[in-house]
Amino acid sequence: MLVYTLLIHCPDRKGLIYNITQVVFQHDLNIISNGEFVDKENNYFFMRAEISGEDIAPAQLEADLRNTLPPEAKISLLPQQKKKIVILVTKEHHCLGDLLLREQYNDLNASILAVIGNYNTLQPLAEKFGVPFHEVSHDAKTREEHDQEIQAIIQQYDPDYVVLAKYMRVLNPGFVEQFPNRIINIHHSFLPAFIGANPYRQAYERGVKIIGATAHFVNSDLDEGPIIAQNVIQVNHTQSARDMAQAGRDVEKIVLAQALKLVFADKVFVNRNKTIIFY
Amino acid sequence: MLVYTLLIHCPDRKGLIYNITQVVFQHDLNIISNGEFVDKENNYFFMRAEISGEDIAPAQLEADLRNTLPPEAKISLLPQQKKKIVILVTKEHHCLGDLLLREQYNDLNASILAVIGNYNTLQPLAEKFGVPFHEVSHDAKTREEHDQEIQAIIQQYDPDYVVLAKYMRVLNPGFVEQFPNRIINIHHSFLPAFIGANPYRQAYERGVKIIGATAHFVNSDLDEGPIIAQNVIQVNHTQSARDMAQAGRDVEKIVLAQALKLVFADKVFVNRNKTIIFY
Amino acid sequence: MLVYTLLIHCPDRKGLIYNITQVVFQHDLNIISNGEFVDKENNYFFMRAEISGEDIAPAQLEADLRNTLPPEAKISLLPQQKKKIVILVTKEHHCLGDLLLREQYNDLNASILAVIGNYNTLQPLAEKFGVPFHEVSHDAKTREEHDQEIQAIIQQYDPDYVVLAKYMRVLNPGFVEQFPNRIINIHHSFLPAFIGANPYRQAYERGVKIIGATAHFVNSDLDEGPIIAQNVIQVNHTQSARDMAQAGRDVEKIVLAQALKLVFADKVFVNRNKTIIFY
Amino acid sequence: MLVYTLLIHCPDRKGLIYNITQVVFQHDLNIISNGEFVDKENNYFFMRAEISGEDIAPAQLEADLRNTLPPEAKISLLPQQKKKIVILVTKEHHCLGDLLLREQYNDLNASILAVIGNYNTLQPLAEKFGVPFHEVSHDAKTREEHDQEIQAIIQQYDPDYVVLAKYMRVLNPGFVEQFPNRIINIHHSFLPAFIGANPYRQAYERGVKIIGATAHFVNSDLDEGPIIAQNVIQVNHTQSARDMAQAGRDVEKIVLAQALKLVFADKVFVNRNKTIIFY
Repeated sequence: MLVYTLLIHCPDRKGLIYNITQVVFQHDLNIISNGEFVDKENNYFFMRAEISGEDIAPAQLEADLRNTLPPEAKISLLPQQKKKIVILVTKEHHCLGDLLLREQYNDLNASILAVIGNYNTLQPLAEKFGVPFHEVSHDAKTREEHDQEIQAIIQQYDPDYVVLAKYMRVLNPGFVEQFPNRIINIHHSFLPAFIGANPYRQAYERGVKIIGATAHFVNSDLDEGPIIAQNVIQVNHTQSARDMAQAGRDVEKIVLAQALKLVFADKVFVNRNKTIIFY
Repeated sequence: MLVYTLLIHCPDRKGLIYNITQVVFQHDLNIISNGEFVDKENNYFFMRAEISGEDIAPAQLEADLRNTLPPEAKISLLPQQKKKIVILVTKEHHCLGDLLLREQYNDLNASILAVIGNYNTLQPLAEKFGVPFHEVSHDAKTREEHDQEIQAIIQQYDPDYVVLAKYMRVLNPGFVEQFPNRIINIHHSFLPAFIGANPYRQAYERGVKIIGATAHFVNSDLDEGPIIAQNVIQVNHTQSARDMAQAGRDVEKIVLAQALKLVFADKVFVNRNKTIIFY
Repeated sequence: MLVYTLLIHCPDRKGLIYNITQVVFQHDLNIISNGEFVDKENNYFFMRAEISGEDIAPAQLEADLRNTLPPEAKISLLPQQKKKIVILVTKEHHCLGDLLLREQYNDLNASILAVIGNYNTLQPLAEKFGVPFHEVSHDAKTREEHDQEIQAIIQQYDPDYVVLAKYMRVLNPGFVEQFPNRIINIHHSFLPAFIGANPYRQAYERGVKIIGATAHFVNSDLDEGPIIAQNVIQVNHTQSARDMAQAGRDVEKIVLAQALKLVFADKVFVNRNKTIIFY
Repeated sequence: MLVYTLLIHCPDRKGLIYNITQVVFQHDLNIISNGEFVDKENNYFFMRAEISGEDIAPAQLEADLRNTLPPEAKISLLPQQKKKIVILVTKEHHCLGDLLLREQYNDLNASILAVIGNYNTLQPLAEKFGVPFHEVSHDAKTREEHDQEIQAIIQQYDPDYVVLAKYMRVLNPGFVEQFPNRIINIHHSFLPAFIGANPYRQAYERGVKIIGATAHFVNSDLDEGPIIAQNVIQVNHTQSARDMAQAGRDVEKIVLAQALKLVFADKVFVNRNKTIIFY
């Protein structure tokens, strides 16, 4: 029994689900899970289905679907399999360590092909788990040069996704455009937000009672792409800025893993600057 | 433009969505929101759609759907409108007060037709909001007599749902069977659970760090029906059993309101002893 | 048996707790609860104790404490009793309704002396609970004139605290300075923060997964004083901006009540721009 | 500058804090953090202080404190340093992996001296981090024999605490009594609780919306000792029993780490069957 994930998005119109499911039925396939969402403001249709059958002809199925759908339709027909990823890091270990452990024990739904760091701090950690580590120092390089060097290494691995696991540098737009909706970042979040250097210090001085983490796609500004997952943890005045940062690390690693789980299961559409998630 | 909610559940088979959406398409109707879920273990199909059109003929639509579906199919075609409810209470005010305020400000999606209490403690509260209150004391009555008296009052209002807003008596099976999947209860929940009298006292003595609330349908045992919503609140050792009960009341009222919101929007199916919720 | 809350804050030095508890011991009083916190960065000492005895002479006790403490010490000796409050509102009912219900059922630890609104929208709600309502329209008035009119009404009630329960206007610094650490506000909070008009719309367009609420003292900028309590609620892409605002109202009313409970129990110190809370 | 943590608990009486802080003052020491709690029901006093000074004479300080306190008083004067721990595991990796990573990066406040497993499944993981692993199979042994074998290995390391990181066997009372308030366990928790085999399966069938984890001391029954920390995670009907178990693992590892952090900082007293925690 084969299982594929079918993703479709296109302008909405009457009869879309009927048209799509007719094609699936004619191919003698089962729909074992299905969800649709219409963005009414923009009149846009999103659909995610898991379809199974003894025999699936993806190219023919996609062609038949294309025939029945509006010309702008985006159709993806994906075999259910592990994604391939490359991870970028700087010096903090908590997200990388968590992802390496999850991959090791089949809890990530992805293969970590390589880790790239602008420092070599985390090289021993990656290598402990048998994952190649590339140090690409930014010393004495322009931002473009540095990005291109990293990009060259990534391309050699041809990953499905690039995960920024506390990679503390801003990527150039040129880099980001190479991987549309395929770069995922994690960062701390506060209520209220603190702009500028040392946000944990600012959060401490303001006496926040909650700190959070946001996992999102990187499409332009580092901290501004479509949000995939968020969560928070409670803190109090007895905790120093350092304690708060430590609490923040726990929520960061869990939120990043939750977001990746959704993305790697092909459950996340990007719709303008937000996500549509079929939980 | 009319909008109806269409609810279908039946044994799963190939082509169901196609069959259903074909009928909808033939009636020249739009599907403005749609979700399906297949319980794979029991091979059962659940679908919720919101359909709209200039002109909807519900009886004809339902007949045409029935023709195309398995004979066991349950089909509901519901106009989107406020539900009618009757609320049962004992002495605690927090859930009733919250529901009366929400109804008053159109934040409940329901009309509260009446409140019935086995004490008259909350009569002034109900009447403050112009809602009729019936005191039905259980004094000197068997459980059956008391239940029947309450049932008679409920039937006179013909509500869509009966809400137990901290009604502290167990209902007879005979009563419950009159309202299948139409009685909703709220109760506190603990990790771990505490059996027997005064659970807050037990929770206090065990030093729990979290207390919760569960809203669920009542189909048999008072605290055992399909769960609709749950949430928790953190507590600590400085709080007395009384403080914990007070914290518990806050989470109870919010969880009850969240559950009712889902039920009144026809988003909740009951599937054996659990719920399927189209959030 | 009398019970007082003793609050002390002053520059830290060796022997402070010893000096203070010696005075309490010499007065033959019991310490039934006690907490100290030292802000090490600023070398500042905070202490909250509940003391009880057959016979307490507050003036003498305070004088004896002052003798043993640094001259800058702030000492408060407060009988444990309900606070008196005045509530300011605009048009939203959820926080006011919740506070009126809590007061009615002795769940607020305060008496609501009056409600003041810049519209009369909530007059029927306040009066339903027997609380006087004053409409003070801002029409055709400068901000100073409007504030002074409100201030005059407040002073006539001589409250311990002023609660802004969704009062949607900015108060002048002159107003705020009249009530240092005695005005409490509630507002929604987002991760990330959204500046400018219609933040729920912005949050919706960004697809946030969490919305929160912050209760804080108002000492200068409306949304910038020391934070007392915060909490969040999860949302998703199926919710409209209006749904998110509704979810936000639930968390706002609970967070405001939690914050007031802490403040009214004299558990909250203000230390620069943050709070020290003895939970 | 030396820093010690001072822990005292004894029957309550007037003047205790005064008596204790007098001794500390006479030793010319600073109290840099302090908390007291009185269990009023049992009239019992708990105090935790961090004291610092150029020169601390622990034996003399403890003797002087003992002279001023009731004879039943328990006094501990602990240098602030890393704890030594031994971890017991079965086959699940998530808690062990998380603890190994934290220790490696100085985020645990403890040294992991050894890991003992009743299977060798996690031997490669422990050894990856340079920690000795002992397999002690329970095959063909009585429970007592197996426990004694493990106990012999533990004693050879002389740890401060024994951590059960998903050790799936019940320990004999004789074993537990060797380490009073020094064995910490983590287990999943549900609302409501599910007794018997395969609780995730039962939780799935009941359609729970929340699953939790509880970290606690083991003093008698495996799942019944004083609770140190608890937390929860939201789940829904689309998740299988296996998905719920996976979600449960994330909350288990975070709750265990939070509990250990509190215990290893000497912030947790055991008071009958609950904990007093100085956060």
